[in-house]
Amino acid sequence: MSNPTAAMLVIGDEILSGRTRDANMFYLANALTEVGIDLKEVRVVSDDKGAIISAVQSLSQSFGSVFTSGGIGPTHDDITADCVAEAFGVGIDVRQDAYDVMAAHYIAQGSEFTETRMRMARIPDTATLIDNPVSIAPGFKIENVHVMAGVPKIFEAMVASVLPTLTGGVPLKSQTYRIDQGEGAVATPLRALADKYSDLSIGSYPFQKNGAYGTNIVIRGGDEAKVTQAMSELMAIFPNNGA
Amino acid sequence: MSNPTAAMLVIGDEILSGRTRDANMFYLANALTEVGIDLKEVRVVSDDKGAIISAVQSLSQSFGSVFTSGGIGPTHDDITADCVAEAFGVGIDVRQDAYDVMAAHYIAQGSEFTETRMRMARIPDTATLIDNPVSIAPGFKIENVHVMAGVPKIFEAMVASVLPTLTGGVPLKSQTYRIDQGEGAVATPLRALADKYSDLSIGSYPFQKNGAYGTNIVIRGGDEAKVTQAMSELMAIFPNNGA
Repeated sequence: MSNPTAAMLVIGDEILSGRTRDANMFYLANALTEVGIDLKEVRVVSDDKGAIISAVQSLSQSFGSVFTSGGIGPTHDDITADCVAEAFGVGIDVRQDAYDVMAAHYIAQGSEFTETRMRMARIPDTATLIDNPVSIAPGFKIENVHVMAGVPKIFEAMVASVLPTLTGGVPLKSQTYRIDQGEGAVATPLRALADKYSDLSIGSYPFQKNGAYGTNIVIRGGDEAKVTQAMSELMAIFPNNGA
Repeated sequence: MSNPTAAMLVIGDEILSGRTRDANMFYLANALTEVGIDLKEVRVVSDDKGAIISAVQSLSQSFGSVFTSGGIGPTHDDITADCVAEAFGVGIDVRQDAYDVMAAHYIAQGSEFTETRMRMARIPDTATLIDNPVSIAPGFKIENVHVMAGVPKIFEAMVASVLPTLTGGVPLKSQTYRIDQGEGAVATPLRALADKYSDLSIGSYPFQKNGAYGTNIVIRGGDEAKVTQAMSELMAIFPNNGA
């Protein structure tokens, strides 16, 4: 039995130009791993209608659920909501439920619910809203696609709103062991271990620190006892490490 | 005349599980922007043969050049070189040129050139080598795809080897202005400015700091005088900011 799968779509020229370093991918990857959903692919595309529509369609068809980040604000370069509506062939307009939530917020704040802000109440016809406790303007879910804001605090709050609605799998148990030798020295025994424990994922991550080479070995699997057993064998092969 | 385009493919379960935060995307995005190559898409896929082959083929066909990161070490989970060879329908084996470079290095170091390390001399038949001044085992280029290591220091050194061989475009000039108001307040005048300067890219990036909302406006274009002109108009509309 394998875990549910997911993909992420990050939308924004600012990531691709290197102006902004994306933080949402790292956050979502950890949040999904914790609940046993396997993030299988991430795509980053620019604020381009064709690129967004085609990525939404492709990822939505290939994976159990999709999470998007970015492009749902009030400005002219925020085109995600319209693109997602088009990707699923449904209409989009200012929707009463989103309008009401936002209007109540701006009235309570004593600020104006301008036409520009109303743009953020544009929601595809068949979508359901995703709560935004940070800045009110909602995200939305349509089919298996969750459309969320790019600002990290808002993205994280929306992920927290969405996660309890998803069916998770078996959270991966993971154990890490540091070996103070380069990958070249550990590869052969490691391959034998990976062959023996073929239902576990055994990853090898080389690093360099203060001029010395080392390798972190990460053993992951749904069955914690088996992870522990494989880890004991690894530690017997490479004893006396500080990890 | 538009700039050359590029895509990046990040390969590795450790990124998708959230164990490691990718750093290479941010680095490459900046390096390409500096030489006027437009990074149009990034994909992150797992250590899965089918996923890697299909991403290499799709990105290679859609963009001017492709840069991959990860999966070319000596361990069992390093399958990138074999997948890239298969993506282009060419053979792969230990190649003399790569073997010679590595053998000379290990001899000079007084360490053994093991069979495991020889795995890193496996290079697709028609590929050319990419120099690795950090840890010797080379990357390679086949068709328009540059295959590079995932360890950031090695990735960066390989990018430095590759960049001078690429034909760049017009580096984007970019100016940023901070407005101490939320996006809702700036969207309407900003849209008018974007319509007027349709050959510039005008991006709007909301942020929250100490509870207050603000918006960074980034104006980008190949013609610096025009960027400056649009920026002056923006500053006239929203004066007295601290940016």
